Amino acid sequence: MNARSKVYVEGPRADIQVPFTEVALDGGEAPVRLYDTSGPGSDPEVGLPKLREAWIAERRPLPASRLSRDGADLPCATQLHYAKQGIVTAEMEFVAVREGLSAEFVRSEIASGRAIIPANVNHPETEPMIIGKNFLTKINANIGTSAVSDSIAAEVEKLTWAAKWGADTVMDLSTGKHIHETREHIMRNSPVPIGTVPLYQALEKVNGDPVKLSWEVYRDTIIEQAEQGVDYMTVHAGVLLRHVPLAARRVTGIVSRGGSIMAAWCLAHHQENFLYTHYRELCEIFAEYDIAFSLGDGLRPGSIADANDEAQFAELRTLGELTHIAWEYDVQVMVEGPGHVPMHKIKENVDLQQEICGEAPFYTLGPLTTDVAPAYDHITSAIGAAMIGWFGTAMLCYVTPKEHLGLPNREDVKEGVIAYKIAAHASDLAKGHPKAQEWDDALSKARFEFRWQDQFNLSLDPDRAREYHDETLPAEPAKTAHFCSMCGPKFCSMKISQELKEYAERGMADKSEEFLGSGGKVYLPVVDAK
Amino acid sequence: MNARSKVYVEGPRADIQVPFTEVALDGGEAPVRLYDTSGPGSDPEVGLPKLREAWIAERRPLPASRLSRDGADLPCATQLHYAKQGIVTAEMEFVAVREGLSAEFVRSEIASGRAIIPANVNHPETEPMIIGKNFLTKINANIGTSAVSDSIAAEVEKLTWAAKWGADTVMDLSTGKHIHETREHIMRNSPVPIGTVPLYQALEKVNGDPVKLSWEVYRDTIIEQAEQGVDYMTVHAGVLLRHVPLAARRVTGIVSRGGSIMAAWCLAHHQENFLYTHYRELCEIFAEYDIAFSLGDGLRPGSIADANDEAQFAELRTLGELTHIAWEYDVQVMVEGPGHVPMHKIKENVDLQQEICGEAPFYTLGPLTTDVAPAYDHITSAIGAAMIGWFGTAMLCYVTPKEHLGLPNREDVKEGVIAYKIAAHASDLAKGHPKAQEWDDALSKARFEFRWQDQFNLSLDPDRAREYHDETLPAEPAKTAHFCSMCGPKFCSMKISQELKEYAERGMADKSEEFLGSGGKVYLPVVDAK
Repeated sequence: MNARSKVYVEGPRADIQVPFTEVALDGGEAPVRLYDTSGPGSDPEVGLPKLREAWIAERRPLPASRLSRDGADLPCATQLHYAKQGIVTAEMEFVAVREGLSAEFVRSEIASGRAIIPANVNHPETEPMIIGKNFLTKINANIGTSAVSDSIAAEVEKLTWAAKWGADTVMDLSTGKHIHETREHIMRNSPVPIGTVPLYQALEKVNGDPVKLSWEVYRDTIIEQAEQGVDYMTVHAGVLLRHVPLAARRVTGIVSRGGSIMAAWCLAHHQENFLYTHYRELCEIFAEYDIAFSLGDGLRPGSIADANDEAQFAELRTLGELTHIAWEYDVQVMVEGPGHVPMHKIKENVDLQQEICGEAPFYTLGPLTTDVAPAYDHITSAIGAAMIGWFGTAMLCYVTPKEHLGLPNREDVKEGVIAYKIAAHASDLAKGHPKAQEWDDALSKARFEFRWQDQFNLSLDPDRAREYHDETLPAEPAKTAHFCSMCGPKFCSMKISQELKEYAERGMADKSEEFLGSGGKVYLPVVDAK
Repeated sequence: MNARSKVYVEGPRADIQVPFTEVALDGGEAPVRLYDTSGPGSDPEVGLPKLREAWIAERRPLPASRLSRDGADLPCATQLHYAKQGIVTAEMEFVAVREGLSAEFVRSEIASGRAIIPANVNHPETEPMIIGKNFLTKINANIGTSAVSDSIAAEVEKLTWAAKWGADTVMDLSTGKHIHETREHIMRNSPVPIGTVPLYQALEKVNGDPVKLSWEVYRDTIIEQAEQGVDYMTVHAGVLLRHVPLAARRVTGIVSRGGSIMAAWCLAHHQENFLYTHYRELCEIFAEYDIAFSLGDGLRPGSIADANDEAQFAELRTLGELTHIAWEYDVQVMVEGPGHVPMHKIKENVDLQQEICGEAPFYTLGPLTTDVAPAYDHITSAIGAAMIGWFGTAMLCYVTPKEHLGLPNREDVKEGVIAYKIAAHASDLAKGHPKAQEWDDALSKARFEFRWQDQFNLSLDPDRAREYHDETLPAEPAKTAHFCSMCGPKFCSMKISQELKEYAERGMADKSEEFLGSGGKVYLPVVDAK
């Protein structure tokens, strides 16, 4: 029997079924329910069931497509739009159950712009999730084909794998060939919101030459992706012509692909960034599909030396302006952040972003806290991610061990996701999220009581925890033994102190005076039990 | 030709030769010198050369042994003793060159108790290093045999391996059989200071029964280890009888082996901890050999739930008292800290320890910032370690992926050391250590200029960085290519922004107005260069 199973908790209506991983425990302990991102599981040829289809149709009984309306405008369909009107959507109800908070709180956070539910009307397969500082900290995993690695099946497999280990959203950063088909397979099989950087596909359409980009090519790409159901899009509308020279003085210049594409376009045309000049048109399109902006930080620092510099903060001020414009259109928005930042400069990033962008959710890449450890940047950045999450970042974009070196394979995706689940959960503990510590307490209690199987099953990665234990003590009895390979059977601190605890509970050892006053033999069993 | 080589920098006298790893760079860049812990390399059968033998003899021309003096007292031989008299020892000179600071500053930090140089007169093989918050953050790696794994050769190999990857000190935590011989092999082959927990060996001498422990058995064990050259010893003298009931109410009780041994002894005998009652005698012995105290935190929290509780801080107050007593004897001292601590409770640990213990160096185990990720505790704890280092912890005791699950093998030792080198360096950057950022800047500049070999050679782990790069692009020309597998040859942000930088350097793009004002074709090469 598997001690970990998926259970569904019903919301206020029967078609709201919220998934959790339930961990059954020994020793009379109540089962523990953990947040579950893995989805119902899909046959890649068929795709996932359309969980939200009826909810969307109830709210706006129209085809969810611009194209099928001959290009005519559709009414606003965003969660922000409904929230502002005081409407609690099914998505909000779902999220409320998932987070253990009230639906009204969810609605009010969305209405204020402090949280978003990325949920394109054309991606009904998603299990709704929320991104906002007053909720559990979320993580994103990047996948995607490239010119040197372009298997669609491999990317769908990476998507499922990332969601299994806990990715809350996935960004498809495909470049090279087959971008459209790759994305179609990803959308139809994804239980988590999907983000993209539409600029990458637009660039492919003009044969990779940034100079040939235009608003029209970009707009058509946006609509193509909107129709497929992309839930949020990174838009580098904050890279302005006047910012570019600021970046030229840096140690590592512009390290964002989107940022450097737009910088090159601006300079070649001597014109302002077309994403900035056409931003209101973008808002109109995003409103119809309920696509959320992820305002890209094209000038994020790519090294410790460049952190918190004028180029970065000049762009941030523009992102603040764009955030407020998006809200005029009831479009949901989050703001991307760095990058490479030493620890003492991390807090300033969140504080400034929250101030400038009216508390719109912050979504950061790490940050990496040092540049000197390529091949271990999941660790250099998990440090920064945990801290920035604590300070108020709502979603953490993962970094894999291959960052700066190559494309992540399946194992790298897992390493990145686990490192970021750790960072996110450490953030939740530090933020004092009401449910966060229950998980730690359950695992620590299992550890203290030598319930090895419970300890494994409660772990972020039960497979590896079990495997590591078995390397030294493979025999089945060791799974119930009151010792481990670190101290061996002869002497175990946990065992001794557990017995101390039993004495205390029997009221015989409440204060040291009582220890001293009681008879000599009372304590012998404590130390005899080797 | 190997681009990484060992060089020696001569101090103010010819026999002070301080090792560095020198990384030769391409592109006319000056070579970079990195702190080097690897030692001169030893033949395990012969042992290392006795670097400090003459320095020690100069200062105290007596046998460095109690035993050869028939038990008569020897005069105080500690670095603190010399520092207080205004004497700059050869060890201090060595450390000054190693850290890039003045010898007088080194002396004054030691004299004040804010820093220690662990350097037993019977371990002349060490290359002197300093532990203190105003120096580079150091890391310790634990090794040692146990009842279930007891190969001496394997432990010596782990020692060398840990020092190769950057361990500043190593603790030999051997239990089980052959403790003395194992330690002898480790001492004679270690270029880094060695720490122990003498209680483990004392317990073996009484067949593992804590009740049979006595001051006499313990004292003899201390002297045995002192004669071998152990540089610092963890002493659990702060676990007092009155503290024990406080720990009994915890989720995970007492998780320190030393702490639970002493708690068991106290309760069984109804007496105060003999390490506390005989502490001044310990100081006398430590002074003769220049052994540093590492005051053990036997009541450190073993779970998030128990962090910063009354048991922990009650013991800390006792450690403060013991710190000041050690200083009366001119004995060097550092203080151990937790453990498991959520991020928002980390700073309080350092602030309290520094206040209570008169700024004596703090030496913490992690701390782990969540309990839920066994098999990844090198990461959960690297987060806490980086933060606590920034806040003023002088040395970080590593945690390997096997923590809580089993004994670390060679690969686990490396994973733990690398994760902690990252944490320590991130701390140094955040503390603003004058030399820390040079390393990041050199690597980032190499990255930006596509000097791939330089990037690998400057990495914490050049082997793995190279291996990961080669997984996607194994061909030799890719090592000089102006692109990587992430974007591919078609479009590279680094390449574009590097060209932007070149324009800026030619004075053609200082302000956006100048971009706008200059001719259209000027910028085309920027984007043509795909």
